[in-house]
Amino acid sequence: MNTDRLLSSLIIEALNALPVPSRPKSLYDPVCYTLGLGGKRIRPKLVMIGCGMCGGDPRQAVNAALAVELLHNFTLIHDDIMDQASSRRGKPAVHVRWDTNVAILSGDVMFNMAFQQLNHYTPENGFPPELFGQLHHIFSEATRIVCEGQALDMEFETALEVDLDDYIHMISCKTAALLDASLKMGALIAGANSETVETIGRLGLEAGIAFQIQDDLLDAVADPDKFGKRVGGDIYEGKKTWLSIEALKRAQPEKKSRILAILQNFSCTEEDVRFVVDAYEKLGVLADSEEAIKNHYISCLSALRHFEDSAYKQAILHLIETLRDREN
Amino acid sequence: MNTDRLLSSLIIEALNALPVPSRPKSLYDPVCYTLGLGGKRIRPKLVMIGCGMCGGDPRQAVNAALAVELLHNFTLIHDDIMDQASSRRGKPAVHVRWDTNVAILSGDVMFNMAFQQLNHYTPENGFPPELFGQLHHIFSEATRIVCEGQALDMEFETALEVDLDDYIHMISCKTAALLDASLKMGALIAGANSETVETIGRLGLEAGIAFQIQDDLLDAVADPDKFGKRVGGDIYEGKKTWLSIEALKRAQPEKKSRILAILQNFSCTEEDVRFVVDAYEKLGVLADSEEAIKNHYISCLSALRHFEDSAYKQAILHLIETLRDREN
Repeated sequence: MNTDRLLSSLIIEALNALPVPSRPKSLYDPVCYTLGLGGKRIRPKLVMIGCGMCGGDPRQAVNAALAVELLHNFTLIHDDIMDQASSRRGKPAVHVRWDTNVAILSGDVMFNMAFQQLNHYTPENGFPPELFGQLHHIFSEATRIVCEGQALDMEFETALEVDLDDYIHMISCKTAALLDASLKMGALIAGANSETVETIGRLGLEAGIAFQIQDDLLDAVADPDKFGKRVGGDIYEGKKTWLSIEALKRAQPEKKSRILAILQNFSCTEEDVRFVVDAYEKLGVLADSEEAIKNHYISCLSALRHFEDSAYKQAILHLIETLRDREN
Repeated sequence: MNTDRLLSSLIIEALNALPVPSRPKSLYDPVCYTLGLGGKRIRPKLVMIGCGMCGGDPRQAVNAALAVELLHNFTLIHDDIMDQASSRRGKPAVHVRWDTNVAILSGDVMFNMAFQQLNHYTPENGFPPELFGQLHHIFSEATRIVCEGQALDMEFETALEVDLDDYIHMISCKTAALLDASLKMGALIAGANSETVETIGRLGLEAGIAFQIQDDLLDAVADPDKFGKRVGGDIYEGKKTWLSIEALKRAQPEKKSRILAILQNFSCTEEDVRFVVDAYEKLGVLADSEEAIKNHYISCLSALRHFEDSAYKQAILHLIETLRDREN
């Protein structure tokens, strides 16, 4: 079995074996429902790969992998309430399938379940006495940063203009910080030194930023047949993205006004959206976002070069390439 | 300075020194607002008393005290959304002062801040290597139980009948479990053995159950001038309480129907409420709830007898007596 498939099956096995009480039903049914929605399981895989890349046994990292997957899924439940998203992975979001109260509380308990997974890394289970504190620190710092990212994202919704640096900071917090933390936790479980832990974290951070800018680009230029969502969705919703922020900075007053008007009009037409994408193209924003994505992937791969060759290094390289070359 | 005042001032000092970032404002302003609303700070005080009663220095327990206070305040923010409570300690609830999204997310970050306080108890700070894991286990178990209690409370709202044992289980989860955990955490920080930790936890659990049944009783019989809330509020809202559950069990069919009709009618009159309180009286429910409260306080005080006399034992005795004799 190849490494990626092996890690996937270890994660699925661990998720299936996760002890979730059956009652109260209104608390735990949504937890099982959410974990059963699937997803690419990128974050738990990164925990295990991080451990393997630093010479550890990825099986030792399973509980930390579950912790980040539970944390990520908790944020999805609460984010879907905040973003009024009605579906998640093709199924009704928890706050729609049940209600907002159930979604708040089952998210809370899932957040707690995430922390509980870290309880595994105590000296009684044969781990070094400092490990639990180190993992707990990285995990809780990442959680703080993810919350800050979501708050900034919501604040940006009503902001008139957002600076590109602030936007990069927001996506670093909201998306990249947990990839960073996932790899670091795996490395710590393998007993890596602090320099290695920092390097592997940078790898995750750069990949996360690249991934998120690419999300913005795909939204504007993806092949509708392959994208799976409505192309131009960010424009219809008037979201601040790498593209819209750069375009508004570059456009002449007249064009800027028209772009702004379209972004602020929640019932804009297909023609409006085409106008904005065309402006992105003419202003060089599409090409420059591609360049930015490429540069972040280059930084990511340059961090990867510090690691010796292994099946896990191959697995993360494959994962990065898959993310880089995706069409949706 | 007496012990109670000393502990209070240590807690206030620690809360004031808590490092809360200033930005994102939408994330952290509600955290400061909530912590500034005051409250009796019973739970953090119990952590420090638990430590002192077991021979430890309560100053060592300050971070654990902050952890339980942050956790408690996070649950208040989320509970106020779920219960549609518009005010908290005489001020607008967070979801009213800001909005639901802000309340969800600032609650989440406060929950995380609670866990981060436990980071203090690592070997690097001179604590025994097993302590962090023990505290983390008790804290996260208590959080799970508190979430289960809130879920049960919400499930009971739509349940036709609730069994008294199930009700006691719900209040044990929702209220008593965190008092139990607070004392246990303090005891663990003092290095108490597992038997002592269990005994002090039982003390907190029994006090919590007594406190909650007393809340139910006060709601029906409090002096309106001293109560601070509308007397009979639970009846107006049709809540399941120790009193309503017992009364429905004891009443003859005709009286039972009328009580049920009043509890289910959200616009019932003062006369209706007087009818229900009168029924509680005639069915012996008021007297028996007093008896139940007394018995739980007796169990609580009997657990207290296992501890040597100290200023901290006097402080908890005073706290228990204050709770027992309160009129609101």
